[in-house]
Amino acid sequence: MTLHFEQELNKLKQRLLTMAGLAEAAVNQATQAVLRREPRLAERVKDEDDALDQLEIEIDDAAITLLAQAPLASQLRFITVVMKISRDLERIGDEATTISRRALELCLEPPMDTPPELAALLAAAVQMLDGALNAFIRQAPAEARAIPPQDRAADALHRQIQRSLVRCMLSDSNTITRSLALMTVSKSLERVADHATNIAEDVVYLYEALDIRHVSKEASL
Amino acid sequence: MTLHFEQELNKLKQRLLTMAGLAEAAVNQATQAVLRREPRLAERVKDEDDALDQLEIEIDDAAITLLAQAPLASQLRFITVVMKISRDLERIGDEATTISRRALELCLEPPMDTPPELAALLAAAVQMLDGALNAFIRQAPAEARAIPPQDRAADALHRQIQRSLVRCMLSDSNTITRSLALMTVSKSLERVADHATNIAEDVVYLYEALDIRHVSKEASL
Repeated sequence: MTLHFEQELNKLKQRLLTMAGLAEAAVNQATQAVLRREPRLAERVKDEDDALDQLEIEIDDAAITLLAQAPLASQLRFITVVMKISRDLERIGDEATTISRRALELCLEPPMDTPPELAALLAAAVQMLDGALNAFIRQAPAEARAIPPQDRAADALHRQIQRSLVRCMLSDSNTITRSLALMTVSKSLERVADHATNIAEDVVYLYEALDIRHVSKEASL
Repeated sequence: MTLHFEQELNKLKQRLLTMAGLAEAAVNQATQAVLRREPRLAERVKDEDDALDQLEIEIDDAAITLLAQAPLASQLRFITVVMKISRDLERIGDEATTISRRALELCLEPPMDTPPELAALLAAAVQMLDGALNAFIRQAPAEARAIPPQDRAADALHRQIQRSLVRCMLSDSNTITRSLALMTVSKSLERVADHATNIAEDVVYLYEALDIRHVSKEASL
């Protein structure tokens, strides 16, 4: 193993962290566009999504090249985990794009009270994503283990939002189109929390060489 | 490279094909449970989803072990692509679980006409999945290239279903709960088609060493 190889691994990590920053910014902007009715914020998400798509391809290319250099078991885990996290970050970008489209639609409709839990769900999803990425950076599997259980709270917020939007639709059919758009936003944020959970599970696997997928899924049912 | 290594790669492929069969059966059963109002079909999906979760972990374990044996570039691509396809198949199982839950809810509600496009969307998604997997088995990247453009038709069916369900909700608020459940079913089938697209793109990459992700995405917009 050469110094050059270590430097290449580090570059891979840096690219992943760039992706992480972009993905988080995209989710934040898209959801703020909904909450504050600002179409400009929503329009910016497209650029971040394009950059995420491009970075995912670059990371995969670099990872495949590095895998061919017969790395150590721990480096092998690192490279495959980076590829997985990169896929999750790319999907988070797709969710942000979905949210931004709904934001643009909602900006054209009359204003409507959004469920107060929507901001809380955004905060929860972003906090989980931050937590998972910090655990990755700090090589702290114990911190990563704390993330999947938080998914229950995110799911509960999503369900509350769905219920209050259904009530809204039932009491006033004029709100159906807008309520459906807000349901999609909530569902996308709930999926961001799911991706953060995936990332956290990958971080545990990376540093403890242990697969906790579906174990945490079962425990959180 | 030994005969043993080739045998291990073949075992990996066999496991992936087992996953593919289970994922397809799960989507079919879950959606048929909605269409025919048969809760028993929906209940069976849980077993398939558990088996898919387990197989994904086994495939990852085996893949990591094989990656450590410093394979050829083409084998490296094969192993990483198997890991990716396995993740998509596991997600398809999750969509089937979502559909089966909605099926169980719908079976408790009074019957309601389902949009006729729902069966067409199921057929389209399953056909795309079959096409992608056959391209993988037959090592036929040209066949895989034919799949992503089909996603447009699946998206169009999904939008038609959403529109007719919104009309339904607007004309009779008693149908709101059931229409929302059917919207989720349609969204899940649309996601199955997305996963089939991912798999097809991975198959092109595998046999042509070329990344067509986001190119086909752009082209289909």
